This record gives sequence, C-alpha cells and structure tokens, in this order.
Amino acid sequence: MASKNDWLTEHYRMVNAAFAQNPPISLEESRDLNEHWGDATTEPGGVDYVEVDAGGVPAMWATPKGSAADRVLLSLHGGGFIGGSMYTHRKMFAHIAKMAGARALIVDYRLTPEHQHPAQVNDTTAAYSWLLDQGISAEHIAVTGDSAGGGLSILTMLHARDRGLPVAAAVMPLSPWFDIENGGETRTTNVMTDSIFGGETPMNLGFLSQILLGEHGDPTDPAINALYADLSGLPPVYIQASGTEMILDDGLRLAALAEKEGVEVKVEIFDGQEHTWQMGAGRSPAADEAIRKLAEWVRPRLGLD
Amino acid sequence: MASKNDWLTEHYRMVNAAFAQNPPISLEESRDLNEHWGDATTEPGGVDYVEVDAGGVPAMWATPKGSAADRVLLSLHGGGFIGGSMYTHRKMFAHIAKMAGARALIVDYRLTPEHQHPAQVNDTTAAYSWLLDQGISAEHIAVTGDSAGGGLSILTMLHARDRGLPVAAAVMPLSPWFDIENGGETRTTNVMTDSIFGGETPMNLGFLSQILLGEHGDPTDPAINALYADLSGLPPVYIQASGTEMILDDGLRLAALAEKEGVEVKVEIFDGQEHTWQMGAGRSPAADEAIRKLAEWVRPRLGLD
Repeated sequence: MASKNDWLTEHYRMVNAAFAQNPPISLEESRDLNEHWGDATTEPGGVDYVEVDAGGVPAMWATPKGSAADRVLLSLHGGGFIGGSMYTHRKMFAHIAKMAGARALIVDYRLTPEHQHPAQVNDTTAAYSWLLDQGISAEHIAVTGDSAGGGLSILTMLHARDRGLPVAAAVMPLSPWFDIENGGETRTTNVMTDSIFGGETPMNLGFLSQILLGEHGDPTDPAINALYADLSGLPPVYIQASGTEMILDDGLRLAALAEKEGVEVKVEIFDGQEHTWQMGAGRSPAADEAIRKLAEWVRPRLGLD
Repeated sequence: MASKNDWLTEHYRMVNAAFAQNPPISLEESRDLNEHWGDATTEPGGVDYVEVDAGGVPAMWATPKGSAADRVLLSLHGGGFIGGSMYTHRKMFAHIAKMAGARALIVDYRLTPEHQHPAQVNDTTAAYSWLLDQGISAEHIAVTGDSAGGGLSILTMLHARDRGLPVAAAVMPLSPWFDIENGGETRTTNVMTDSIFGGETPMNLGFLSQILLGEHGDPTDPAINALYADLSGLPPVYIQASGTEMILDDGLRLAALAEKEGVEVKVEIFDGQEHTWQMGAGRSPAADEAIRKLAEWVRPRLGLD
C-alpha cells in the first residue's frame, strides 16, 4: 500500500511504465490512467464547482466559500497537451484558490492529438478574454498553470498582449514546460530523479511536441515556445519548480529571459520534489507549503491584502 | 497497473489488508485510505456541486445540467458508519442523478467513533426534513444509499414515518448493511468472493457494530437494525446486491420482511460483483448497467416519465 505521501510518485511511475510499453498504451487507456492523476490530491472542502461555457471554451468555476467573487485565478492544467482536464486538476486549483481567497476558473482547453497548436492557446486566451467580458478587471486576475499549463500561462498573456488586451496582475507557472524543442541541461542531469519523465525508461517528450505541432510545425514558433518570444510587458511572474525534475531548466531560462526584458520574476526551487508536486496538496507537506507561498505571493498582487 | 475495471477490487483489497494489520491501521490512516474509494468512479461530467447546510447537517447538491430541480435523490454514502463522505461518493451519486434526471443531495452525516448511533439516522432524517422544508414534495424524493448508507436509507424513512413526516416516493438500497448483529448465511458462504469484507483475512464487522452502538447498545434496536423494525408504510423499495458479497442476505431478509408488510419490493442480484460495485461507474459495465436500471426504475416513481 502506498503511504499517503507517495501516491503521486506511484501514479507517475505507472504513467512512465505505461508509456514505455511496447506496443505503446492506447490513447483511451492513457486518458483513463490520466484521470487518476488528481487522486493524489485531497478534497479541500468548502469549495463549490460549477461548469460553465467560458466564451466557447468548457470551464469550471471553483468557488471557495467566502472567497472574493471578483478575484480570479485563471487556471490551466498540465498533461503534455495530450491529457489532464478541469477534472484532474479540480482539487489542486481549488486548494490554491481557497488559500488565496479567490475563485478559480479552470479551463478545459482542447487537447492533442485531436487538436493541434494553436487550439490550446486560442482556447485559454478566449477564456481570459471572456473573464474580462464578465467585468472582472485584469488587475484582479492571476494566471496559473502546471507543466504544459505553466507554459500556457505565459503564452496566454503574450497572446492577450498581442491582441491588445490588458495583461493580468500576475502569472504563476508551476513546473512549467516552455521548451518545445526539449533542450536544457536538466533534461539530462535530472533523468534519474524524475519519476514521470525520467527513470530507466525516459518518456519521449519530443513525441509530445511533435503531435502538438504537427508535421510541419515549428518548435521555435514564439506562439508556442516562450523561450523564443518577446517577453516584454509581462506582469510579475512567480515560478515554482523542483530542483530534481527534468524540465527545471525551462523555468530558469524563461526567468532569465524575462528579467532581461524588465519583468519582475521570482523563481523558487523546491528540492527533491516530483514534477508538479503541488498535486499532492492535502497529503504532502511540500505541496501545502508551495501552495501557501503561492497564496502569500499573489494576494497583495490581487489587492487582497 | 490495475486495469480500469479492477480499480475498485484493488482498493478493497488494500482496505482489507490495512484492517488486517497488527497493530491495526490508525483512524487517520484509515480515513486517508478511505478517501481513495471514490477514485474508482469516473467524473460523470456536466454536473455541478455545491455544499450546503441541510438543516444543520453538512451536505452537497449534485446538480446535473438540465435535471429537474424539484426532483431529488437523498443520497446516503456507505463506509461502515466510520468512513465514507459526501466526497468519496460524489461521483457515484452524480452518475445516478444524471441518469435519473434529478438532483442528488449527498448527506455528510456524522461518523463513528466520534459519534455513535443515533447521530447518523438523526442527521439523515434532519436532511430529509430540511428537503421537505425547502418545498420539495415527498412524492418527488427518492432515498438511496450503499452499504451502511443502504441501511440508513430504510431507517431514515422509518424514522420519518414515526415522526409523522410523509415518506418519500421510493427507496433504493445498494449492497445494504441492515443486520447490525451480523448474521445471515452469506456472511459465511461468500467469504472467499468478497474482496473488502472477506478473503483470507475477513474484516471484523462486529467491531464496526460495537463502535456504532457503544458498550451498552442493543444490536436489535429497531432504530438501527431494520430487520427488527416495523416496516409497514414504506414506499416501493428496489434493492441491488451482489450474489457473491457477504452481506447479500441482509437485502434478501429485509425484502422478505417488507413484503410481508405489504411493501412493494424488487430485489435484483448482480452475480460476481464487488460490494457496492456501482462505485465503478464509468469504468465497469456492470456498474453502469446497475445505474441505468436504478434510473429506469425510479424515474416514473418521481413522475419523470
């Protein structure tokens, strides 16, 4: 029996093993296994969940009792653009929202392989634009997301900026995946300490990029790879990553590039944690500590303190 | 890796093994393990969840999009009176409600060992009474529940009747636990086919009864053991049980006693299934079939057809 703190690690190892199978796991099996990702997270309790059409994009309001109705965390789940959903990440984003005293709008953007780039960033930007249309001030919105959703959190703001929309008050990428080319030193040096992407049978992240971009896609397209984008005009950014995960360098490189453009950036590295360890909220003290820090950082930026 | 249909069986085996440990699993560990029960169930989707104070009792509305707002399934979770919650059973009851086209009110009644009988039936009856106070007609309410909650589904109606309240339109106990004395032939004959209560290390159900009743409690008290109760005046009852589970006889004996009192009773036995196999909804065809039959049976009784 997995101890209560090891649930996420055990899930990640199952996913890793499933993708290492020959022949590979089917998309249907992969999606079913993926639905168990959120099993790592406890119920925060005292949060209501209502599905909504957010400008043509399916989404879910997570509304903690007593939270500020006009303060919103636009929440973009991870899953390599091929998995994850507003259901797998419902509890994690609700934990963050509850701690921050805001609502979360969890966006169920379209996935690969059915939908290639730019469907994902178009959907998340449409949901952001819809929030503004509802009368929520950009100054009262923070964008957060993990893994692929961490990448989208930045890309969505760049896309919004380029469309002439005001950017949000803050962005909080968690274990973000920015580099669609899959470079960076930690993709090599952290292989043995990353349960989902690494280990004895490392996952082929290039395959995820390929089905995201399609045959003729360009992994240096700034609309999908923020490391090639003009990062000027971004609001304050707080990145959380694990010191032992393979895509640690994605966050570090994005942070350096953004700082050069005058963006206020904070990077916090939690050593020895799994990729998106915040999914262990309610069971893992490191997850709860990370979420406490997110809330502490974002509250004044949303005018909540 | 568990195949998608085996998730519930694997969970039950973990629970069985945890209770067979020496020294026994702590209450805290037991509650955390218990929270994973609902991981067996898929998200039904298109259902909203709002926590509410139901006459002093915590509860959760599960509202499928497009469901009849004035038709309600009062939903009582299982867990041996010591576990389970409105969270563990959220998705299972939402699947039933969605299929039936009604809302579910999932009651978070008080648990043992902190609260002994009659806290549980008092809470569920208070929630039922609150529903009536909200203007929901008794004719538009069905009561359902699994395992200990299946027992409570009948006890709540008897308690309501004795308090002069109108009874609901229908009751649907699933794998119900009625016999607090823990008799019945199938508790012996089905030991080896029951993953949670039986196997090589059968669970001590008498211990669950003991902490429910306390030192001086009476397991023949009709307020907690429906097999000793006056069953007259019950609405139509539809019991689902597994032919291979240990407490099968509880449902069969209750059915025989209720029929003697002129109650309309239907019992359906699904062979080879786990206790409360309906928790496999969305993954297990037998669970989906059982839920389809519940909906088909209850819809005309709620005036929905």
